[in-house]
Amino acid sequence: MRYFIGIDIGGTNIAVGVVDEEKNMLKKLSVPTGADRKADALIDDMVASVRAVLELAGMTLADISSIGIGVPGAVTQDGNVIQAVNLGWKNLPLQEIMSSRLGLPVYLGNDADCAALGEVVAGSGANCNSALMITLGTGIGGGFIVNGKIFSGCTGQGTEPGHFTFCYGGELCGCGKRGCFEAYTSATALIRQTRRAMEKNPDSKMWALVDGDIDKVNGKVPFDAAKLDDGTARAVVAQYIDYLAMGIAGIVDTFRPELVIMGGGICNQGDYLMIPLNEGIRKYSFAADEFPPPPAVRATLGNDAGIIGAAALQMSMEKK
Amino acid sequence: MRYFIGIDIGGTNIAVGVVDEEKNMLKKLSVPTGADRKADALIDDMVASVRAVLELAGMTLADISSIGIGVPGAVTQDGNVIQAVNLGWKNLPLQEIMSSRLGLPVYLGNDADCAALGEVVAGSGANCNSALMITLGTGIGGGFIVNGKIFSGCTGQGTEPGHFTFCYGGELCGCGKRGCFEAYTSATALIRQTRRAMEKNPDSKMWALVDGDIDKVNGKVPFDAAKLDDGTARAVVAQYIDYLAMGIAGIVDTFRPELVIMGGGICNQGDYLMIPLNEGIRKYSFAADEFPPPPAVRATLGNDAGIIGAAALQMSMEKK
Repeated sequence: MRYFIGIDIGGTNIAVGVVDEEKNMLKKLSVPTGADRKADALIDDMVASVRAVLELAGMTLADISSIGIGVPGAVTQDGNVIQAVNLGWKNLPLQEIMSSRLGLPVYLGNDADCAALGEVVAGSGANCNSALMITLGTGIGGGFIVNGKIFSGCTGQGTEPGHFTFCYGGELCGCGKRGCFEAYTSATALIRQTRRAMEKNPDSKMWALVDGDIDKVNGKVPFDAAKLDDGTARAVVAQYIDYLAMGIAGIVDTFRPELVIMGGGICNQGDYLMIPLNEGIRKYSFAADEFPPPPAVRATLGNDAGIIGAAALQMSMEKK
Repeated sequence: MRYFIGIDIGGTNIAVGVVDEEKNMLKKLSVPTGADRKADALIDDMVASVRAVLELAGMTLADISSIGIGVPGAVTQDGNVIQAVNLGWKNLPLQEIMSSRLGLPVYLGNDADCAALGEVVAGSGANCNSALMITLGTGIGGGFIVNGKIFSGCTGQGTEPGHFTFCYGGELCGCGKRGCFEAYTSATALIRQTRRAMEKNPDSKMWALVDGDIDKVNGKVPFDAAKLDDGTARAVVAQYIDYLAMGIAGIVDTFRPELVIMGGGICNQGDYLMIPLNEGIRKYSFAADEFPPPPAVRATLGNDAGIIGAAALQMSMEKK
């Protein structure tokens, strides 16, 4: 049995795990990221965390085949971090640094890509060869798996499925463009849509759910109120799911994955979201009768997906 | 030197060529498709055309390594035509039929995919490994080349980059959905946009260009009038290029090809189209400063792209 270390560098925590070749997580731990620190300090903590998690697992570096790292930014195939905005990193040869510190092969991936790979090898997409993962968060996270491997664009510069134009001339997106898919379907977008509907509808039950304070709106509020049969909330939810279904259908029509994996807190709505979402994707897919679109399912690994996917980087590259 | 036959089944003509392994077209011919005939009759003509083009080239079937066929529809990797609407074909084992008729290995591809492959191996994209080809025609044709091979979606069901939602709730598309990219950027869409602008602007010079007959508008009219400094036409052209640039930027941000290859009659406008198109793609690409988008260039092979690409199918599959 081979063993691997997976590291997921998040904005809040660095999570580190020992994963076996059957993708079981044996031990894990996390430490605060301290994203405002210098790269050196953060790297010191990663090295110490690797040693600590091996301690927990009763192993040494000699038991490990390789270390995989999921980076919140763009990485090159030869192991450079081109840029990780939230960490303040630019052109950091992270693979070389970590490899020389720990004496093991190191593989890098984008964090969203690693999460998608984790879901495909050990989560909701286990046993499929290709998948699209869409995570509904502050923005839209996307990961593409083709033939069991991360596809980060032909040139490896990363995929940005949140930023295709979905509504020409529409909502301003955080990226500066108007009408991006993300500006209609992120959790942030849902909250904006909810607030606007509340302002137009002072009688909506959503006001009671936030104690009259519109700043308290989160992505759960419209769903909770819709389940109480609040008409305003039902309209918000239906519109949001329509945006999501239509956008995903468009990606699916070209990428043709075997599975769509949905991540992010909004997916905790379960069937209330997933059933109409699947109906919508089918309705909006091109030639859905001849080519039924893939099912959309919920991610199952949560935060572990990033660790397991990072740990699985070497194995994915060994695949033919 | 190895030699290959390429067949491009178009709506009007079946084009057949002999291509050498350096992707030179040695001889070619075409015969009317007769798309309303039974499949058997059309296949008889394909077989006869193969023999005829070999005659022209002074060769026999024994000189040929394989036959590639570009089909206007969806094909499976094991050689079935799932559907070719305009030919009335459904579940036709074309590979098996042609192979047994001619005693040679036969490869199938979608016609737009074959054209993209042809441009990448012998046209404007020669020496690149990955490209997006967009053809501006009655609809939007798209072809994706990854690592020198056709990418027809993970499941091989074909790519439909004309049908992602580009303007939610907008123009009705031929596919039945609203707001598809194709409904804003095909030649058909440009003609519709031109006619609307003419109806609103009876003083536009475009009226003179079509002898006052709006039915005579084609994709060249707005460009011709824009070059005569007609304000209405300039606005139509600028808006059309903006649609095109924004949509292509979105595809490029995820697919990250080395090159964008533009096909279709509208591209005969040359720099007048291509310079602002490239500027627009750069303007609308995500993080263009860190990751400059690929150049968009004109296709150079015209109708030969489909023949050469079909002929190159076997060679592309031999690539690692």
